[in-house]
Amino acid sequence: MGWNKVAVVGVGLIKFGELFDKSADFMIQEAFLSAIGSVDKGIEPREVQAAWLGVCRPTLHGFGSVGGVTLSGNVGLAGIPCTRVENGCPTGSDTFRNACLGVASGVYDVVLALGYEKMRDNTTLGLLGLAAQGHPVLQRGETAMTMFAPQAVRHMHEFGTTKEHMAMVAVKNRRNGACDPYSHYQQEITVDDVLNSPMVCWPLNLFDCCPQTDGAAATILCRADIAERFTDKPVYVAGVGMATDVPYVHEKESFTEFVATVRAARQAYEMAGIGPRDIDVAEVHDCFSITEIINYEDLGFCEKGEGGRLIEKGETGIDGRIPVNPSGGLLTKGHPLGATGIAQMAELYWQLREEAASSGGLGDPKVNARRQVKIGRGYGLQHNVGGRGISNSVVTILTRNP
Amino acid sequence: MGWNKVAVVGVGLIKFGELFDKSADFMIQEAFLSAIGSVDKGIEPREVQAAWLGVCRPTLHGFGSVGGVTLSGNVGLAGIPCTRVENGCPTGSDTFRNACLGVASGVYDVVLALGYEKMRDNTTLGLLGLAAQGHPVLQRGETAMTMFAPQAVRHMHEFGTTKEHMAMVAVKNRRNGACDPYSHYQQEITVDDVLNSPMVCWPLNLFDCCPQTDGAAATILCRADIAERFTDKPVYVAGVGMATDVPYVHEKESFTEFVATVRAARQAYEMAGIGPRDIDVAEVHDCFSITEIINYEDLGFCEKGEGGRLIEKGETGIDGRIPVNPSGGLLTKGHPLGATGIAQMAELYWQLREEAASSGGLGDPKVNARRQVKIGRGYGLQHNVGGRGISNSVVTILTRNP
Repeated sequence: MGWNKVAVVGVGLIKFGELFDKSADFMIQEAFLSAIGSVDKGIEPREVQAAWLGVCRPTLHGFGSVGGVTLSGNVGLAGIPCTRVENGCPTGSDTFRNACLGVASGVYDVVLALGYEKMRDNTTLGLLGLAAQGHPVLQRGETAMTMFAPQAVRHMHEFGTTKEHMAMVAVKNRRNGACDPYSHYQQEITVDDVLNSPMVCWPLNLFDCCPQTDGAAATILCRADIAERFTDKPVYVAGVGMATDVPYVHEKESFTEFVATVRAARQAYEMAGIGPRDIDVAEVHDCFSITEIINYEDLGFCEKGEGGRLIEKGETGIDGRIPVNPSGGLLTKGHPLGATGIAQMAELYWQLREEAASSGGLGDPKVNARRQVKIGRGYGLQHNVGGRGISNSVVTILTRNP
Repeated sequence: MGWNKVAVVGVGLIKFGELFDKSADFMIQEAFLSAIGSVDKGIEPREVQAAWLGVCRPTLHGFGSVGGVTLSGNVGLAGIPCTRVENGCPTGSDTFRNACLGVASGVYDVVLALGYEKMRDNTTLGLLGLAAQGHPVLQRGETAMTMFAPQAVRHMHEFGTTKEHMAMVAVKNRRNGACDPYSHYQQEITVDDVLNSPMVCWPLNLFDCCPQTDGAAATILCRADIAERFTDKPVYVAGVGMATDVPYVHEKESFTEFVATVRAARQAYEMAGIGPRDIDVAEVHDCFSITEIINYEDLGFCEKGEGGRLIEKGETGIDGRIPVNPSGGLLTKGHPLGATGIAQMAELYWQLREEAASSGGLGDPKVNARRQVKIGRGYGLQHNVGGRGISNSVVTILTRNP
């Protein structure tokens, strides 16, 4: 059942945070070595035949242009082909998707998908720099907040969703992230903390927004039929969906759903031959608290308009019916664009293998274990949505079922 | 024989040149409509299930970041997945490669690979802007010329290659380009013209260097086994190779070959089950005249060191043993990074179908026909090399043989 042509046999990431002390090269190398070292039965780096690099806003060497050799040349793999992918917030997950297509094509047996992002030490190339230079839209405040806040307002208006519902998402994810040693934030917060945090763009307070975070993450993929060479517990790619929507906010038909997510999820479920009820655990794109609530609905975890009730009833907590963002999500772990989707794959890999306690060797196993969800049907779902006009989404379904 | 999982069933490009009057959106739409319109038996745009967009130095909307929705949302295909690829000079050909992998994976039946580049109306994000801001390397003159000129010097020293040999490449490609209605330049030149053109970086004169050119190109690809739905004359992807080298010039072992090209060519020939002697026509990366001479050797069209003699004997002319760059190549047609590789595929598509005369409907058929090569074995080879440290290469082999 499911696509299952490609297997994940290794994952690695670095502790997310404000990594002013680490170069992009260093972050790439650290994530790569972590992924290589995670392969149960071992792997030689030279067994990797091709690579895909995800990074959305590269600042490496002061250039505005970064190609694949930034990865291959940095990790001792000069020689192999390496494609650089850029695709807004789903940059990491689309990088993973293209690596999957590469393996499924039959051309490559073992490949690497790695993403990184330096979000903190921006050059003048960033959005704020462009705004300062007088960019016609940016100087008037077109930011991620002004794209997502209207969705929150409309969702509140149509479905009675409240600021408390949104705050509950932030509280849940902070609680989960406190048990994820890779998370940018490690502190729990309360609903009052969220509601009393500074207003950024009504109705989104500061703690409704994900932080600006540096990070890197990597996965080793191979043909499913050779996965046993690397591990006895592979995780398979059961389905991968990707879709777009009209790229400008003013063209959208709905402000309470992300059409790209709905389309991508439909593709992924169909490829996997399952439905939302089969998902044991999900890592979804909570760039803002309202985004996670809308995702619940778009991904089929509840009916349209019921997202607020789903978090209120605790159904998306670690012990709930459908645990969402055990890693802490973007709200807690952070959102380094090129790394985010691939780090979500790593979390699902550990969750499906019931290895959150060890989490690749970082952190206190007893603390880490608190975020391990119960695995039943054996399926995990990964999701990103974003890009210009919130018009781009990737949904990937991983499974431990052969 | 050969990989042949993927077929090209439509190609389109726009006239290359200084397109200050056309927006990136316009160029994308024009190339897309041209490719859609070229499909012999017709195709509905909605039959396209996924897309890949290649652009290396995007300036669209003043942003330094461009995702796939820039393509899908612009051509009435909002909904389908679209990956943005960036990979230095091989950006276009790697975009095509990823589209091929997508089809071969079995996930998509019909896809679009489109590349564009605005090289002329740069924002401040360009290399010169960074140099002006005091970039430590760029302000000291690290440019494409300073990476390629030393290769020319060493090739002259080791193999007796002369400035006249290089000039002959420029002369041949200008002659070919004069018969390509899409080419930036349309005038023939002489060896003396080249030798007397201004010195840019010894031994490269101005006419040894490709121009800065805007352009866009697109291809429609599908599963080989459904190609007959779209045309009775599909062109198949017989092999696609890609490789890298160490990414810094000072690390290189040789200054007379591009190791990435040698590796990529080996992969492509092996997949196609052929050798250099089977190639009827090649479109190769002549960013500088010396590059084409080195490519002859790296691609196996002659022995190492014999590149100068090959052009001198006229073997790479339209009527020669192995015609190279009938389109005029980068030296004449121009090199809009995201478009170049895909435009090369279009030229090979026409050449292998023996349709250079019509050239997609542009130009004078009698003039166009002068660049039609004789097709024997039925194979064409596409090649790009570049990126940081000339460390990235793609080689694609197309064939009309089922």
